Amino acid sequence: MNTLSREFPLWGSGGFSFAIIVAGGSGLRMGSEIPKQFLPINGKPILIHTIEAFLQIPNLQVILVLPQKDIEYFNSQIKEFPHSLIHQFTNSLIVEIGGSTRFQSVKNGLAQIKAESGIVAVHDGVRPLISREIIEKSFEIAYQEGSAVTSVMLKDSARIINEDGSNQAIDRTRYRLMQTPQTFRLDWMRDAFNSPEQPFFTDCASVLEYAGYKINLIEGSYENIKITTPEDMALAEAILKGRG
Amino acid sequence: MNTLSREFPLWGSGGFSFAIIVAGGSGLRMGSEIPKQFLPINGKPILIHTIEAFLQIPNLQVILVLPQKDIEYFNSQIKEFPHSLIHQFTNSLIVEIGGSTRFQSVKNGLAQIKAESGIVAVHDGVRPLISREIIEKSFEIAYQEGSAVTSVMLKDSARIINEDGSNQAIDRTRYRLMQTPQTFRLDWMRDAFNSPEQPFFTDCASVLEYAGYKINLIEGSYENIKITTPEDMALAEAILKGRG
Repeated sequence: MNTLSREFPLWGSGGFSFAIIVAGGSGLRMGSEIPKQFLPINGKPILIHTIEAFLQIPNLQVILVLPQKDIEYFNSQIKEFPHSLIHQFTNSLIVEIGGSTRFQSVKNGLAQIKAESGIVAVHDGVRPLISREIIEKSFEIAYQEGSAVTSVMLKDSARIINEDGSNQAIDRTRYRLMQTPQTFRLDWMRDAFNSPEQPFFTDCASVLEYAGYKINLIEGSYENIKITTPEDMALAEAILKGRG
Repeated sequence: MNTLSREFPLWGSGGFSFAIIVAGGSGLRMGSEIPKQFLPINGKPILIHTIEAFLQIPNLQVILVLPQKDIEYFNSQIKEFPHSLIHQFTNSLIVEIGGSTRFQSVKNGLAQIKAESGIVAVHDGVRPLISREIIEKSFEIAYQEGSAVTSVMLKDSARIINEDGSNQAIDRTRYRLMQTPQTFRLDWMRDAFNSPEQPFFTDCASVLEYAGYKINLIEGSYENIKITTPEDMALAEAILKGRG
């Protein structure tokens, strides 16, 4: 690793910081042959934006988890961006083959981490607008508390569907929508991902919770969108333009 | 009303269909002096898009509820769009002065309805992308069931904050985010809006529920966004372009 060229880990000594970036989507909902994580926003593939957001963080090791069929394509894509941070920190990026589910993919990524201790952020490959501030905050808080899961408030009124099919208003201020990064102590992650996969594992927080770990929520951002439709791409470009 | 030039009400005879469009926002979050409902998407103010979406529906009376300070501006804006449906159906649009809260504004709009029976849709002025199909469906279902509230599923994992500050995963498939239109029988609306205003009245569904009426949820659309930020405007334009 090029650690000498980079600053000391923000979250403290005694371990390393890692980011597992998971990208397994197809291009189906995009009406595209190309998996959505490779579609360009502002001229650069979504996934490269995402990886670069993490490579800005000092001393961070990125494990990119991709379906096997997409790895060659990814390698050809990064060659088209010779000034990318990816080329500046080649040793900070490992590419690993994904599994059949997100849980399996994260587990594969985790298996690439050889350190004894550290902090691991898991992030969606199609959330390219994540800010450096939020990534750093998630490492800091996870170092202090064991976990730091980004989330946002509900913007709209919400209701719950009861078992009899009726529904009722809920107090939306008590609910949070999860985003990524979801950042945890490495030992917590390793233990939790040894659990047998459950159908209700919809994100890492649900895996860690199942294993008995406390989930600490931190503030995400409405700009940190998950790109799944062509309209989301236009929104992402508008947000990037707004940032100048 | 120009009823002769329009088709028969979709939802049946014996009354009228009404839409109360509520627009009371400021331009603050937009970084604009102009209230957000007047900002243009694809060259036309958001609010005019919204009104036109409803004027497409045969035999519909629209009650637009605006802050007093904005009425003159609205009148000047519509003059700039001589081909708007608003000029084609001038008698189908009433403008009413808003109250200090959304509840009061809807109540003011409701007071403009003189019919004995009918169906009333309430819609946010800053949701211009509502489709004709969803509006019509909401009238049909409200005619049959008394209420039809548009809603969508949660896209992300979600958690609930417990009273002790801890949090836990929820089954997101049991939750819905509310949109508008929220469409009801006129007599239900009148009765419900006679209730004293409550702090938990975040939408019409919560008002009708408080008065004891059954809330029937129908499918909304992720495209039916509420425009509150400059990025939402870019998204709205992208969705409009996608529709051709």
